[in-house]
Amino acid sequence: MGGTYAGCILRVNLTTGEIKKEKPDPALLRKYIGGRGLASYYLNQLMDPAAEPLSPENVLIFATGPLTGTSAPAGGRYMVVCKSPLTGLIASSNSGGHFGAELKAAGYDMIILEGAAKEPVYLAIKDEAVELRPAAELWGLETDVVTDQLREEFGDEKAKVACIGPAGENLVRFACVINDKHRAAGRSGVGAVMGAKKLKAIIVRGRKRPVAPDEEVFKNFVREKTEILRTNPVTGEGLPKLGTKVLDNIINENGLYPTRNFQTGVFEGTEEVCGEALVEKGYLKKNRGCYACPIKCARVTALPTGSRGEGPEYESGWAYGACCGVKDLIAVTEANFLCNRLGIDTISCGVTIACAMELFERGYLPKEDLGPGPALNFGSSEAIVYYTHAVAYRKGFGDKLAEGAARLAQAYGHPELAMTVKKQELPAYDPRGAQAQGLAYATSNRGGCHVRAYLIAPEILGIPEKLDPSSTEGKAQWVKAFQDLTAVIDSLGICLFTSFALSAEDYRDLLAAATGFDYTLEEMMRCGERIWNLERVFNLKAGLDPKEDTLPKRLLTEAMPEGPNKGQVVRLSEMLPEYYKVRGWEEGRPTPEKLRELDLA
Amino acid sequence: MGGTYAGCILRVNLTTGEIKKEKPDPALLRKYIGGRGLASYYLNQLMDPAAEPLSPENVLIFATGPLTGTSAPAGGRYMVVCKSPLTGLIASSNSGGHFGAELKAAGYDMIILEGAAKEPVYLAIKDEAVELRPAAELWGLETDVVTDQLREEFGDEKAKVACIGPAGENLVRFACVINDKHRAAGRSGVGAVMGAKKLKAIIVRGRKRPVAPDEEVFKNFVREKTEILRTNPVTGEGLPKLGTKVLDNIINENGLYPTRNFQTGVFEGTEEVCGEALVEKGYLKKNRGCYACPIKCARVTALPTGSRGEGPEYESGWAYGACCGVKDLIAVTEANFLCNRLGIDTISCGVTIACAMELFERGYLPKEDLGPGPALNFGSSEAIVYYTHAVAYRKGFGDKLAEGAARLAQAYGHPELAMTVKKQELPAYDPRGAQAQGLAYATSNRGGCHVRAYLIAPEILGIPEKLDPSSTEGKAQWVKAFQDLTAVIDSLGICLFTSFALSAEDYRDLLAAATGFDYTLEEMMRCGERIWNLERVFNLKAGLDPKEDTLPKRLLTEAMPEGPNKGQVVRLSEMLPEYYKVRGWEEGRPTPEKLRELDLA
Repeated sequence: MGGTYAGCILRVNLTTGEIKKEKPDPALLRKYIGGRGLASYYLNQLMDPAAEPLSPENVLIFATGPLTGTSAPAGGRYMVVCKSPLTGLIASSNSGGHFGAELKAAGYDMIILEGAAKEPVYLAIKDEAVELRPAAELWGLETDVVTDQLREEFGDEKAKVACIGPAGENLVRFACVINDKHRAAGRSGVGAVMGAKKLKAIIVRGRKRPVAPDEEVFKNFVREKTEILRTNPVTGEGLPKLGTKVLDNIINENGLYPTRNFQTGVFEGTEEVCGEALVEKGYLKKNRGCYACPIKCARVTALPTGSRGEGPEYESGWAYGACCGVKDLIAVTEANFLCNRLGIDTISCGVTIACAMELFERGYLPKEDLGPGPALNFGSSEAIVYYTHAVAYRKGFGDKLAEGAARLAQAYGHPELAMTVKKQELPAYDPRGAQAQGLAYATSNRGGCHVRAYLIAPEILGIPEKLDPSSTEGKAQWVKAFQDLTAVIDSLGICLFTSFALSAEDYRDLLAAATGFDYTLEEMMRCGERIWNLERVFNLKAGLDPKEDTLPKRLLTEAMPEGPNKGQVVRLSEMLPEYYKVRGWEEGRPTPEKLRELDLA
Repeated sequence: MGGTYAGCILRVNLTTGEIKKEKPDPALLRKYIGGRGLASYYLNQLMDPAAEPLSPENVLIFATGPLTGTSAPAGGRYMVVCKSPLTGLIASSNSGGHFGAELKAAGYDMIILEGAAKEPVYLAIKDEAVELRPAAELWGLETDVVTDQLREEFGDEKAKVACIGPAGENLVRFACVINDKHRAAGRSGVGAVMGAKKLKAIIVRGRKRPVAPDEEVFKNFVREKTEILRTNPVTGEGLPKLGTKVLDNIINENGLYPTRNFQTGVFEGTEEVCGEALVEKGYLKKNRGCYACPIKCARVTALPTGSRGEGPEYESGWAYGACCGVKDLIAVTEANFLCNRLGIDTISCGVTIACAMELFERGYLPKEDLGPGPALNFGSSEAIVYYTHAVAYRKGFGDKLAEGAARLAQAYGHPELAMTVKKQELPAYDPRGAQAQGLAYATSNRGGCHVRAYLIAPEILGIPEKLDPSSTEGKAQWVKAFQDLTAVIDSLGICLFTSFALSAEDYRDLLAAATGFDYTLEEMMRCGERIWNLERVFNLKAGLDPKEDTLPKRLLTEAMPEGPNKGQVVRLSEMLPEYYKVRGWEEGRPTPEKLRELDLA
């Protein structure tokens, strides 16, 4: 084994308590890179994709990539991979902070958790020493409290913690894993899988540094790429200054800022909840960066109420703001803080509440069903805070919301009001204003998602070049290219935000120098395509019907009522067949030839 | 000296640091009872009523009554008396909790503070030991933090603290004094006077118990009156169950629940913010009582955001709720918590924000003047929290709000939009639905206030008998009787809420037994009348023009637009001349005969 891999995979059987270490095969590393790719490979190997996500048969993987924990800029990412209880498909959620780098420093590329504990446990890792310990006293605690308590117990303030909150314990279908108190492996309910396994937390401390085969060469690349990030207007200025919330006004002015459950793309309250307002109102206290990050887009915030935390990020602020019609930046930020403490995905929770608001306002959801909870009108600042709390504990109507928008809308006889793809809630871009993004949503391997392929970059921001967002022409090829490159980036262990500035060549440079594998650009991109197809194979085995490669009816048939995209719908049928074609798929399935070409069969 | 008086007045000169103790004259005690009455006497004696309220010439008095600290039911009240920076008239603010009883136990009926310190100080009292100590390190702290820190420094967890928050330090005209963290001597800006004197806090611990001349007799009365309170539907059931917020629905249904700065008397959001909602939504955690109280109307509350505190009370919940058009009970409760921590009167702050909202919505207050603060639309949950915080620090537009509604509306050229009497903001009853309450507001000695004479009891609740709220007939006599009896109750050191159940005779029983003075009912009521007239004399010397015995134009000329009181205005001119007459006043001034009759001249 060489390069920046730790060279060890930690395997933990929670049913038996057995802990093993094994060396990964170098050929597998080269083929799947690490992180998302390698974890997807193991998931396919170790579990039946048709298994019930909340059963012990599910496999939960924490995976770093070859750049995780190195000096590569923003090289602090890790992935949580398993089968999702929200979508029933593959889940692979990415997170930053410092946990991933610490796991690598302790000497592990991945942790593979199988089975399920009978009583709550946590996993304690101090370099070579690995132990499962009882967590009965931690069960029920919020993520920040768990983190503090575990660190104290562990006796090392520098130890890093990834854990679940009450939402994960209570199997909320969109519960997340929180690391370093404020960073989330957010989507697809990976926290519920951890909860079902009765694994409350992983605490890790390590003292090794990953070393590249030729450190001098690697460091030169690191310096070069860091400089590119520092001088780029997005990663060097926009994101450092306003964080991800730099986007609120841009997306709203472009008319694709989904408002009141995607009923329109223009939010009249943007001025009150945008990134600029967070700064001006004095809620932003300072910026913070993840491990080795020169961008530092995280926001440390405090409210007049005395609440402190991080965020909201653009997506979180939107989900609780525009999507719920709420103009109260304090309530939006409180709801975001709550999500972090309770271990809830902000996007899914906000969009599910928005769905309930539309059901309520249209009279499909009777007030009695809310019990003692506040009325679910769009704009209710109380509702977003109250029901977020109720979701985590599955209290009252929170129990129904905890199932996600798709199951909620279905239960009330109006599935068309769930703004979901493959049962996962859509993020903060109305695809009626960005056709390629619509295709990317429809074909995402983990359901409604913007970070499997962020076509907003070319369609709206003009990165790396400006595309006409209303055109469908050639978009299939763009989506495929973005999906494949993103699969690579997520496998590297570097932050996706670097891709605003770095090119595929830049990633190749870092990857080759870190691993010592002489990747060509073509080989690296084939890895990305391989990972994408492998995830698709998992999903098909899990029971995915390619007909689910679609969007909520609203986005396909209801014309955008106002703004720059007035009159538009997503013309998915103009793009999907071409997408299958460029993917080499037939009827939405990879052909045997394609699988052979990718060395997957 | 006998009975339950401590028999000692503590006099502190903050300018010189001199501390003296003196015995009060028994004749003065009998004439002014204690508490509000006796303090008003000293205020008249010791200061020029025309002096500037925030100058060292103002005198700040903390006063207990003969029942304070005894076993009399709800006998834990104390008063803070001084000249108000809000009204320019006498301020006398009542508070419960445990501070008053502790002051009595330490051996003091009153603390009279004169002059002003150069640097922040606090007053430490442990029985006989009394000391002024530097408070530089406490300056700037919120009231709950000050309380904890002082207790630790003092080394006695049972010590009681009354203090100011940042609002008092920053001379907010409606800053209050907070004792026991959650109880407020709330109105008229007594906290700003304390701030101007650079007195951050008083901490007190005492070990003496007040003893009645015949303890057996006194205790029998205590048992008897306690039993009356326990079996009365208001003090035995309504208040214990829902606290003061039992009133929201009653007052709203009766159409006098002032909404959006008194534009109407019916609030469509009452269901979401009422006392029942506080319980049902799970925000109420438990009840809490003040010293020796069988009613226990205080609410210990916690929000889904993690904030904890007490309240909101009916008035506070209304001021931030209906009066600002806000339906978000979380935001209302957060604003209330903030007020307690920052040391702000909830009623004045809420009504001042409501005034600003009307100025804003009518276009009289330009958005630029708000700086980075949120828009001031009715219903904005963010605005009530943001600007409450801004008020305490006089930050941005908070500096203008900190002057109160009367000065704010005046500054924007629309004094008619200030819902104030004598520059103090009105409480939670629209007098267009209760004529006598209108007269009581107009003639209150401390400006807009419901606890100088609570005519809602007879006019709405039917206590002690039901009066027609729309009639003006005989109301002057009722108002005088309530004003005089309330002056007695506030002087006794017992909670005004006992008057829902106890009669004047009951108070006479307790007063006579506690003091050993053989008061007749008539003598006691004459004490009340004396106190009322003494306060009036102070106000006239302070420059009060009897023309100020009036109400905001809206309440006199704009018909109530909807609800049970539709079409009504307050017919003050039908009541005021009669009021002057029953008071024995000419042109709003006590005649020399009246003053001689009351032994005031």
